[in-house]
Parts: sequence; C-alpha cells; structure tokens
Amino acid sequence: MGRAMGLAGLLLGLVVVPAVLVSTSLRHGAPRAGAEPEPSDWEVAADAVPEDSLWPLPQWVRTYSRQLQLAPGRFQLVHGAGSSAGPGCGLLQDAFRRYYEYMFGHSRRRTRSRRPLAARAEPELFQLQVVIEAGDPGCDRHPQLTSSEAYHLTVTEPVAILKAYEVWGALRGLETFSQLVHEDDYGSFLVNESEINDFPRFAHRGVLLDTSRHYLPLKSILTNLDAMAFNKFNVLHWHIVDDQSFPYQSIYFPELSDKGAYSSNLIYTPTDVHLVIEYARLRGIRVIPEFDTPGHTQSWGKGQKDLLTPCYNGEQPTGSFGPVNPVWNTTYDFMTKFFKEISSVFPDEFIHLGGDEVDFSCWKSNPEVKKFMKKQGFGTDYAKLESYYVQNIVDIVSSYNKGQMVWQEVFDHKAQLKPDTVVQVWMASNYAHELSSVTGAGFTTILSAPWYLDYISYGQDWKKYYSVEPLNFPGTEKQKKLVIGGEACLWGEFVDATNLTPRLWPRASAVGERLWSSSNVTNLQDAYKRLTNHRCRMLRRGIAAEPVFVGYCAHEGRAP
Amino acid sequence: MGRAMGLAGLLLGLVVVPAVLVSTSLRHGAPRAGAEPEPSDWEVAADAVPEDSLWPLPQWVRTYSRQLQLAPGRFQLVHGAGSSAGPGCGLLQDAFRRYYEYMFGHSRRRTRSRRPLAARAEPELFQLQVVIEAGDPGCDRHPQLTSSEAYHLTVTEPVAILKAYEVWGALRGLETFSQLVHEDDYGSFLVNESEINDFPRFAHRGVLLDTSRHYLPLKSILTNLDAMAFNKFNVLHWHIVDDQSFPYQSIYFPELSDKGAYSSNLIYTPTDVHLVIEYARLRGIRVIPEFDTPGHTQSWGKGQKDLLTPCYNGEQPTGSFGPVNPVWNTTYDFMTKFFKEISSVFPDEFIHLGGDEVDFSCWKSNPEVKKFMKKQGFGTDYAKLESYYVQNIVDIVSSYNKGQMVWQEVFDHKAQLKPDTVVQVWMASNYAHELSSVTGAGFTTILSAPWYLDYISYGQDWKKYYSVEPLNFPGTEKQKKLVIGGEACLWGEFVDATNLTPRLWPRASAVGERLWSSSNVTNLQDAYKRLTNHRCRMLRRGIAAEPVFVGYCAHEGRAP
Repeated sequence: MGRAMGLAGLLLGLVVVPAVLVSTSLRHGAPRAGAEPEPSDWEVAADAVPEDSLWPLPQWVRTYSRQLQLAPGRFQLVHGAGSSAGPGCGLLQDAFRRYYEYMFGHSRRRTRSRRPLAARAEPELFQLQVVIEAGDPGCDRHPQLTSSEAYHLTVTEPVAILKAYEVWGALRGLETFSQLVHEDDYGSFLVNESEINDFPRFAHRGVLLDTSRHYLPLKSILTNLDAMAFNKFNVLHWHIVDDQSFPYQSIYFPELSDKGAYSSNLIYTPTDVHLVIEYARLRGIRVIPEFDTPGHTQSWGKGQKDLLTPCYNGEQPTGSFGPVNPVWNTTYDFMTKFFKEISSVFPDEFIHLGGDEVDFSCWKSNPEVKKFMKKQGFGTDYAKLESYYVQNIVDIVSSYNKGQMVWQEVFDHKAQLKPDTVVQVWMASNYAHELSSVTGAGFTTILSAPWYLDYISYGQDWKKYYSVEPLNFPGTEKQKKLVIGGEACLWGEFVDATNLTPRLWPRASAVGERLWSSSNVTNLQDAYKRLTNHRCRMLRRGIAAEPVFVGYCAHEGRAP
Repeated sequence: MGRAMGLAGLLLGLVVVPAVLVSTSLRHGAPRAGAEPEPSDWEVAADAVPEDSLWPLPQWVRTYSRQLQLAPGRFQLVHGAGSSAGPGCGLLQDAFRRYYEYMFGHSRRRTRSRRPLAARAEPELFQLQVVIEAGDPGCDRHPQLTSSEAYHLTVTEPVAILKAYEVWGALRGLETFSQLVHEDDYGSFLVNESEINDFPRFAHRGVLLDTSRHYLPLKSILTNLDAMAFNKFNVLHWHIVDDQSFPYQSIYFPELSDKGAYSSNLIYTPTDVHLVIEYARLRGIRVIPEFDTPGHTQSWGKGQKDLLTPCYNGEQPTGSFGPVNPVWNTTYDFMTKFFKEISSVFPDEFIHLGGDEVDFSCWKSNPEVKKFMKKQGFGTDYAKLESYYVQNIVDIVSSYNKGQMVWQEVFDHKAQLKPDTVVQVWMASNYAHELSSVTGAGFTTILSAPWYLDYISYGQDWKKYYSVEPLNFPGTEKQKKLVIGGEACLWGEFVDATNLTPRLWPRASAVGERLWSSSNVTNLQDAYKRLTNHRCRMLRRGIAAEPVFVGYCAHEGRAP
C-alpha cells in the first residue's frame, strides 16, 4: 500500500482537476441589512470543479495516493463471499444497477474517445464485493429508527469490499464508493485506494416536504428521494395534508380528497403512496406521514361533515369552522377508523400527529365546547382541551402499535405522551432551551428550528445551516443522547414543482452532513469545496441543485 | 354590443372559474426580522386559478360581457385589409404560428371530449385581422428605443381587428389578444368582446442576465426571451462577460474566450449570438450587450496580454492585475478593434460600456499610472483617470455610430458623456437623488436600483418591486421625461440554468407591469389576482415560473 494520508491529504489528494482560483468580488453593492455575511476572501471559487469528494464526510477515512482504474465494461458490483444477501435480494440488485449507472452511465452518452485501458499505468479494480453480515440482511424489510447504517469499505487491488451488518449500511456504503470514483480528463475512471469506517452520528435525518400548500407531482417526490439518498438522509417527513388541500386519497373516506384536494387529479392514490414508500425503502429512507390535527385541518372539513368545530359569534354560528371538534364522540370514531387506515398504509413504526399552532379562538366561541370545558374542569385553559384531544389521538394510534411524533407545542401544553414519543422542535426562538426541556422530561427529540429552508435569503445561507450544533444546549449526557436527529423543512407556501429541487438542494446537504458526520467536521472552507463538488455530482445525476457560488462544473465544460 | 364595464367589471367579468377562497394562515412561525411583510388577510388565495386576466394591464380596456367562441380548427390569425404587411412578413407569420399555439396548442394534447361548437349559445369569432399602418411595417428591421409599440385591439363578432403602426405594436397586441382568450371547463375557447387601446409607459423595459458568473446555456436564454415577450419586456441587457469568465467568442480576438471562458465549450459562438439576437428580434426585444470596462475585467486579461494594469507592491509587480490599463496606447488600439466587432455583431443602436465599481488600488500602486496621472494633472483623483479612460472608449464607440449606456458611477465621476448617453442607476442608497442628478444634468436614465432580483427574500417580494414608482424623485416634468425605463437585474453569482427561470419569473413580471402600465395601476390586491393567473399562463406556455403563493393552476387540475 502507498503512503497513508490524513484528512488534509485526503482532501488534496482528491482534487484531481487543477483548480484555477479567481477572486470573488461580489458585483454591485452590498446586500441588504440582515442578509447573510458575504463570501469572504478565503472563499475562492474553483474555476473547474473536480468531480469527486465525499459528502457527507465519513466518520473515519484513510485514502492512499495509489490509484486504481475501473473499466466500465468489466467492473462489477457483486455479492461477496459470506454475505447473507444474494441475487435474490432485490433491494441490493436494484442498488447495484443504480450505482453502476451513477458511476459510468453518463460516460456512455459521450462520444469522446478514451485511452485504451492497457495504456495506463494504474492497476485495475475489478469488483466491489458487498457483504451483509446479519443473518437476515433485511432485503424485504423497511428501514427503522433502529436500523444499522454502519459500513466498512476497503478499496484495494483487485477488489473492493463493502461490509455492513444490514442492507441499509450497504446502501450508504455504495453511495460513498460511488463518490470515490472519479473520471479524469481522458475519460478514465479512477479510484484511490482507501479505507472507510462510517456510521451516522444521528439516527433520524429527515427532509420535510409539504404537499398541501402546493401539490407536488409524484415525480418531484421521487426525484427528491434520489437526492436524499445522495446525502444519506433517511426520513421523508411527508406533511401530506393541511388547511389548503387534502391530496391524500383515503380508502375509508374517499370524500376527504374528493372534496378537500385542490382537484380530483391533484391527489395521491393508494398506488402513488405505495410507490413513494417503496421507492424510499429501496434507498433506505423511511416515510413518516404527518396528519396534523386538531389545527391545520380546514381541508378535512370539506369532505368530512361535523368534524371541525363550528365557530360562533355570540349565539349564532358564523358558518366558518375552527380546529377539529374535540368534544364529540363522532370525532374520535372518525379518527379511530382513519388512523387505522393510516397505520396500515404506512409501514413505518411512527406516525406524525402534528399538534402545532392550534388557534383557540373558535373553540372559545363555541357553546358546546365551553360547556365541555366546564364539565371537565379545564377552567379557561384551552391548552388542556388541546391536550385532552391529543391524548385521545395518541391512545388511538398507540392501539395500532405505532409510535408518535408531535410538534413541540404538544409537549409544551403538557399532554400525557407515551415515553417513546418523538418531540419535534421547530420554534426558532430559544430552541436550545426547548431541547433542554424536552430531553429533561425524558423524551426523544429531533431538531428543525434552525433548518426551515423555505426561509430563503441572499447568499450562501448553507453556512448558517451547517454551523448549527444540535447538542449545543444545557443538559446532561443522558439528555444529549435523547436528540435522535433533525429535519430540514421545506414548507410549501412558495414551493412547487417549478422550484422545489433548486431551492432544497444543495442547501439541505448542509443539514445532511451535520446530521451524519462527526461533530468536529465544521470547517467551512473545506465544506465549501466538497459541497461545490457534491452539487456538481448531484447535477450529473439529474438533480437540478442550484449553484453554491460562481463557477461551473467540470462535466458542464465537456463537449456534449 | 353588450353592457360596457369599467375596470372593476372587467376584472370580475374575466374570472370565469369560480374561485373558492381559503384562509391563508402562514404555517409555523413568523418570518425573520427584516423579511417582507406577511401576506395579509385580504390576500385570499383562489383555490382554482382562472386562466385569463391581462398582464401587464393595458392602458385602456373596455370589456363586454358578451362572449364569443373560437374554434381551434377554424380560427385564423391573418393580415387584415389595408395592412402594409402580408404573408412575406416573416416576423408576423412566425408570431401568428406562435400565438395560435399558445392559445390552442395545449388543448390538442388533451383527449377530453368537447361539446360540439353548435351546441353553444355564443356566436363565433373567426379571425384576428392584423393591420400594420406604417408604409414600411418593419418586418425585417430590429426594434429600437424609438419603435412604436402602441396598438389598438377590437374584439367583436365576427372578426377581431388589431391595428398597429409598426410590427412591434402588433406583437404586443397579439400577446394581449392571446391573454384574452380563455378555455372553459368544457374545453371551449372563449373571448369577451373587448376594446383595448394600449401603449407602453416607458420605452426601455429590460431584463439583465449575467452569463459570466455562471454560463447560461442558449436554451435558458431563449426561454427567458419567451417569458420576456409574455410580459412585454423589450430589452435583453446581456451582461455577457465579467471577472469570472469571458464566454463571448470574439471573431478578431478568439483568445479572449479560448483562455477566458470557463471552458472551450462554455462559450457563445457568433452563431449563438446571432441566434439570440434574431430570436429576440422576432419577439420585439432588443439585445444590448454589456462589455464592462475598465473594472470587472479579470477574465479579459487571460486571453489578451498587456491589457490589464499590473499591480505593484512598492517597486515590485505582484503578479496580479487590476482594471484595464488606461495609460497605454495599445489598450485603445485593442478597444478600437474590439468595439468595431461588437458594433457590427450587435445591431442595436446602443452598447453598454459598464464603468461600475472600478477599484483604484491597483492603479495607485502602478508607477507608470502614477507618472501618467502627474503628466495629465489629475493629482491623486483617480476618478479623473477613470473618466479619461471612459471618454476614450465613448469616442471609439461613438465613431461606430453607437449610442452608449453606462452605470451610474461614470456619470458620478464626471466623465464627458455624449448627450444621448443612457445612465443606469443601480445603487440602492438614495436612488431618487441619483435620478434627480442624472436627469438634472440632462441625461436619459433607466432605473435598476430597486429591482435587483438576485437579492432574494422570504415571501411575496414582488410587491416591493411592484410598489416602486420610478418617477417619484424631485425634478421637473422635463426631468421626468428623461426616465426612459428600467431593468430587472438578475446577477448570476447564485443563478444558473438550474434556478434561473423560477427565480426570475414571475418576480420580474412585477417590474414588467410597472414599466408598461399606467402609473395609477397600483392596487396590490388586484395585481395579486392577475399575477397569479399570469403565472399559471406562463407555466402553461412552458415557463417554469414559481408560485406566487398557495394554490394551484386550473390546467394542473385537469386530467392529463
């Protein structure tokens, strides 16, 4: 083996295209007050962006200067000796095809002649052998919060070996291996001899998509799942319905989407939902649906009579409706049946129950609700009524053996939650304090507050997302362990299929690395270089990720 | 004829799809400090967005409630009696085909059955007759600052008549007519009887694209020209080169792009440039190239030796370079030849000479420059040196009978400008004062300062752009007349083909209406409705314009 290099050497060693540095004067005036700080001088833009570099950075990497060559016509992704998975493992077979295509597919479409392999000095890498070590590799299962995503990758002549306990780790390792392979100026595919030991820092690494404010075509969701896999995200938080529309086509209650969707064509049929779940599963991504109640439910009321609370003006109903009506038994009859369906349609162990931003004004106006408050001894504390409602829903969903996720207000309003409830922290003001409180009470939590990617601003805001340290809050070691991850949220008020991809990527990549890589991976200058390259790689793979800054991608500069 | 309606009636009359209003609660927390104000209560989002409504609003509109039906198989766009243009007018023939496609093309791709025409009560509109009144219709010419874009449109049974003095007005009228035609729920095409008298408020209505910070593929530029035509913009300000790259392939100096482009494939060949100009011409859009000097020229230095100023550290050259060297004759020899080419390649009467953000530090360090300053009696006022340089360039370009545009610093630094120079105001701080000064000195001006669309922010920032009144500065009537228009600028630091279209549209549409429509068209609520519809229309026509707010477009809700 060649000379071992440290992290700095790794990064230098991977830059194979000479980078000509240009100064980065920003044209035409300073940004507005409140905007992100401008790119500073050290941020030099590489003229030609090289095609490799790892994102998110693995936990432990050793890269050697010795390069191996891959011949697209000969190179194979195969099951290794001793693996519990074999050709019958559809999930891995599919992944092998996919990653072969990512590594070599685009080159076939170019006509540029290539130096014959024999003319090169580099020895050849013939195979990547994938070995799954668990007795049951998990090929037909769904990923879970507790799934193992760890893997060990060694790239040496003549074969590379990828070992993982479960298939989920193999998927992450395949992504990493594909990122190591790069194409030189002559069209040859090369990989440095390397050894990588890797595992995620946090178990829950999510992206929230909102299909209620705007309908997202199936294709947009699937493309996003591809991008998530490239960034080692493992949860799609599907905020599927809200006030504005109800695109989920329910089997038991088809009127919900018949009347609550924007249009009868702008819905997700059971087939669509199944396709999203399966496409995600094949990429090691869980799909957690959110059916947010009792607030954010205007669209539910269109297809389900007597579900929402009638608002009153004095003695008179106003004709408008508030949150779900928490006082009628019919509400819970409906929810029992509805969540039975949801529990069966979505295989994930968790369902997100929402519970945020409940507006009490309509409840306060309603005579029946007021009577109920009195009877229950809630006084005028409507947070108690909210908690009463939520506890009923929690009990219903628990009876289907599902875990629950909720927005932070549910915790703040002191609902009795099951011990394994995941509390999602979203309010930007003093979220560190909230993390302290939630974990102090013994609940697991995920962080979203600093990662609302719908809040756009001028410049390289990825740095702001990148610089968040999720465990930077007052608390014991035990409390810190209760932070199981985070989510990048792209709310849909101003997002649809026209702008989703470039608005989300590569900004969400910054969150992806923060949640996967070691806490000491914080160097912005190094991250800038790798992210720029990673964005070009996403572009090559069909993700219209927006540019990080000035420059161009090496593949854009090649003859078409 | 039916009942005449005022503006309010027009707007109501045009909304043919019932709009169900939903409340627009904004999810999940307030935007950050400094962000735009939130959508207020009056901003109700139409659930189904109707497919018509005019943008930009014409100067004078009368619409009648009587509807006419158009049969796609029979309806014709033709040259009217007395028109100086006929089938030999390629520009109009091309426009006829294009607008036929915009009006009816998408319907052919749908299979939904249609009520037979005979079953409808509405009388039929058989033709749009286009009459050009000038002796020379201008079919083969290029649009100019002084071109007439006025038109008069009457839509009555059985034929509509579009009268314009020149073809440029006909193009604007065709756009308006196509916006009047709408499709009902049964797939019938309808137009209200109408009369429209229209002309632009400002003669120069531009969009700036920057192809130096990121290369924009030809297709992105052409798509943007389509969108510009839909919004009645008439100038593409092509900021074609800058520090970062020199993609313009010069005929006389091919090394400029050979060495200064990001890559030899990321260039605009003479054929490409010609194609952009012709595509723009067919849409009544001028192409004004900007070759910004003496600053913003780092990329020029790569392919043209001894053009930039060598910077010094004391007695020693540092190896880096500053702005164009203003003291050598070879500089002006080069510029004479270079601008001769540019004057010939770009047919527009104007060339933009840049002149912004000249950094004096390198000039100050250079012994030869210092000597020259002394000789010229400039003292230490390097603005005088800048003006000296600019005046030389102005003289060169004037000798080719080209008018000049410059950024505001050139005026501020007191260069001797030709009387017809157009000064572009871009600095956001107190631009009203700058407009006063520039027009007070008798120069024509265009405004860009409040319309830097690369500065993105959360929410409906189009309102901010829309609410600008370009003539709201201290000055006489004569001064106000010198404001000939404005430009929406999309600088390219963070923009390339992945995000250009949704970032620019429909935000630039707000600028488009401000520059075309009457100064009293300022109602945000009305503009919101029309802009939402207009954005859906752009989407139908293949422009991936981002959503204005929550909701969906009627065409998205139809069966595919």
